[in-house]
Amino acid sequence: MIQLYYYPSNASMAPHMVLEEIGCLFELVLVDRAQNAHKSADYLKLNPTGLIPLLVDDGTPIHQAAAICLHLADRFPDSGLAPPVGSAQRARLYSWLMYLTNTLQAELLHYFYPERMADDAAMAARVKAHAEIRVVEMLDLLENHLAGSGPFVLGDSLSIADHYLLMLCRWTRMHARPAQARPSLSRFIDAMAARPAVQRVFAKEGLPLPWA
Amino acid sequence: MIQLYYYPSNASMAPHMVLEEIGCLFELVLVDRAQNAHKSADYLKLNPTGLIPLLVDDGTPIHQAAAICLHLADRFPDSGLAPPVGSAQRARLYSWLMYLTNTLQAELLHYFYPERMADDAAMAARVKAHAEIRVVEMLDLLENHLAGSGPFVLGDSLSIADHYLLMLCRWTRMHARPAQARPSLSRFIDAMAARPAVQRVFAKEGLPLPWA
Repeated sequence: MIQLYYYPSNASMAPHMVLEEIGCLFELVLVDRAQNAHKSADYLKLNPTGLIPLLVDDGTPIHQAAAICLHLADRFPDSGLAPPVGSAQRARLYSWLMYLTNTLQAELLHYFYPERMADDAAMAARVKAHAEIRVVEMLDLLENHLAGSGPFVLGDSLSIADHYLLMLCRWTRMHARPAQARPSLSRFIDAMAARPAVQRVFAKEGLPLPWA
Repeated sequence: MIQLYYYPSNASMAPHMVLEEIGCLFELVLVDRAQNAHKSADYLKLNPTGLIPLLVDDGTPIHQAAAICLHLADRFPDSGLAPPVGSAQRARLYSWLMYLTNTLQAELLHYFYPERMADDAAMAARVKAHAEIRVVEMLDLLENHLAGSGPFVLGDSLSIADHYLLMLCRWTRMHARPAQARPSLSRFIDAMAARPAVQRVFAKEGLPLPWA
């Protein structure tokens, strides 16, 4: 049995979309952030990082959204959501998924939680502003990539990197220059938002689509 | 043919150690950061992120250190540096490798380059201080993990996550509470530093070992 511990709009969205895309049976378990449930002893036992999401697959707890997406693609190879192991396309998937998680996602966390890097509210506002500026450059780079090698992250074939990118694009919706302000990213978002699996996730998480 | 574009002490160190551990033929290509070679048109054509490292495997360029490590483990399965695809251990490798790259490594980049998030030198100094404080918590979490489930990241078996962790531990060597100040991490560092593959990389990159 597969259980996804999630919270609406959090980093659990990418694994959630991948699960819906695969079409396997899974159970959603709400981690009530509002009650700090992700810092409870029970949750920390399964996920010592205290972060959302967590996947439990036949008793094995797996933390980190990108890790969960890779694992799901491996467990359900017929989904075609990750290229064959050892191939050049698989290596490209690793490259872009790593960039998305350690660069764009990491920077967006500073945008959302600038106080973690600041002495006071004034400094936090400046950290947030710098994070948003840095995200602009990252989105421009991804726009160039899709313009030259799209329409999906790996070209013509859908992969878990696309669900990951869609999630992060949505996180920029309040920015002065959000992801959808760029032509190739805008087309990408529209194409992803038209997928039934994606629409089911937005509905289940109670989020509007389109978001902008 | 495999070529690793590297700069001593940079994020190329983990892939470099993995290559030495595998024992395959590869060529080292110095990217002269001092001359801004990583921002040159030729390099950006291969690696649009303008970051170090880059691996070129039979003409396919692969960027992002963690991606390169995963790819190398896939290309050389006999090395045993990544568990079988679809297994619970493989999922654990993904989890910890993602944590290392999108949390610890991302935070260390703010420690090394605080000016990217700051208006001026005074703010940069505060960003650097916050990054160091956050790294302390991350190292404590990794210490707990190794203490309970070590001696390696995946328990008894060496994997690419260990080379990655070793690289990041070294990056904390100037901190008030560096990685090696913790017993399990200290034993881990000693065990890794005793490996001939690791020693060859430090020698080739002209770096002292032990570093502390």
